[in-house]
Amino acid sequence: MEGYVLTLAYKGTAFRGWQVQPGKRTVQAVLQDACERVFGARPDITGCSRTDSGVHAKGFVALASFKTEAPDVPAGSLPPALNAVLPDDVAVVSAARAPAGFHPRYSAKGKEYVYTVRNSRLRDPFSEEFAWLYPRRLDEEALDRICKAFVGKKDFRAFMAAGSKIKDTVRTVYEFSARREGDMIYFTARADGFLYNMVRIMVGTAAETCVNGLGPEHIEAVLRSRSRSEAGITAPAKGLCLNKVFYD
Amino acid sequence: MEGYVLTLAYKGTAFRGWQVQPGKRTVQAVLQDACERVFGARPDITGCSRTDSGVHAKGFVALASFKTEAPDVPAGSLPPALNAVLPDDVAVVSAARAPAGFHPRYSAKGKEYVYTVRNSRLRDPFSEEFAWLYPRRLDEEALDRICKAFVGKKDFRAFMAAGSKIKDTVRTVYEFSARREGDMIYFTARADGFLYNMVRIMVGTAAETCVNGLGPEHIEAVLRSRSRSEAGITAPAKGLCLNKVFYD
Repeated sequence: MEGYVLTLAYKGTAFRGWQVQPGKRTVQAVLQDACERVFGARPDITGCSRTDSGVHAKGFVALASFKTEAPDVPAGSLPPALNAVLPDDVAVVSAARAPAGFHPRYSAKGKEYVYTVRNSRLRDPFSEEFAWLYPRRLDEEALDRICKAFVGKKDFRAFMAAGSKIKDTVRTVYEFSARREGDMIYFTARADGFLYNMVRIMVGTAAETCVNGLGPEHIEAVLRSRSRSEAGITAPAKGLCLNKVFYD
Repeated sequence: MEGYVLTLAYKGTAFRGWQVQPGKRTVQAVLQDACERVFGARPDITGCSRTDSGVHAKGFVALASFKTEAPDVPAGSLPPALNAVLPDDVAVVSAARAPAGFHPRYSAKGKEYVYTVRNSRLRDPFSEEFAWLYPRRLDEEALDRICKAFVGKKDFRAFMAAGSKIKDTVRTVYEFSARREGDMIYFTARADGFLYNMVRIMVGTAAETCVNGLGPEHIEAVLRSRSRSEAGITAPAKGLCLNKVFYD
């Protein structure tokens, strides 16, 4: 079996997430169709994660693999060839031959997400699909101090969607920071892995902690509780973007 | 007659331009409907220009005027009230009582547009609706020198859509510049007024002049010709954004 590693950018607004679902428009499905047209054979497509409806990506990694020998297409010709047949809201950024044994999800050493907040009472048509409109003023320095409380190797069970069945909820967060540019606040979250909805619950909890005048010690207490109900709201999907996936 | 001056931001992608047309979704029509809901009376809506399908705005100026006395709504409450009923792709940025005799178009002293080019062979889903994808490399310095040739009080007949019936085609361009940020190039055009499609023809001609290795003297020759066929292509509407309108 041979295949290609594809790095994708997509605007998640009009997709029902990554993963194929009967009758739904998903990124995996449109990529599989595009590959079939370009390769003349239908590959299996494996993704680095299952992004939810409305979540965006700038560096999603997928593997297109063939049960028989892969068609002999130079990797460099794949981005223009696939982009010519893919819809406007998804593009192949780069392509390479897959290293032996590569798996987009299990080979990943970490991921980086950016979460965008528009901190204003005023709607903005241009960031509507990409940012959470949060009207209460977030102080950048207080927020960044709160974010720092998430950094380290910790049990993030309180920041996992209720009902998720994962047993090992310890993750190492390398960075969680907030940076303001005008009305926009950009959260960067980098970790060895994330639990289901973890970034969105971290953002929602950090924002609430900030406007409630609480500090990092509140986050530490929520972490210790290991209870989803102690954490804050889940920030909406549309603010989230998978920026990068790290491999060795 | 009394009224309100409204400054609007809108994403033009899903609108058939500004002006009311039977059976079409236009910005003027959705604003008129929103005003009727908020004021309880249907105002006349006048705009600062007729933007085309797909053109965006961050500072479009409109006047909502009433044949009888205007409803007594404080101007400061209009942005939240109107934004609550307007669709996601249009927002009221600010509102004020209209000065006596104010007309969004005839009172305007000038306008500023920004035109966005993505100078790459690679499609990008996030700028797809806001930028012209231009694959041939544009040298920033050469381009900016070409742009400078448009600045001044000149006859812009060659840069007006064919078939336009305007007689006085002399306009004063205060600024026309190009600035690169990574793969993106932002053209800024500021003038006392613009002819139909003028910014888009200026951008298309500047880009072609640049990749053809010609200089500002080519633009000067096109201006002297006063002939649309001597100028270059009309850059697509989706890259254009009305940034500001200037009044005394």
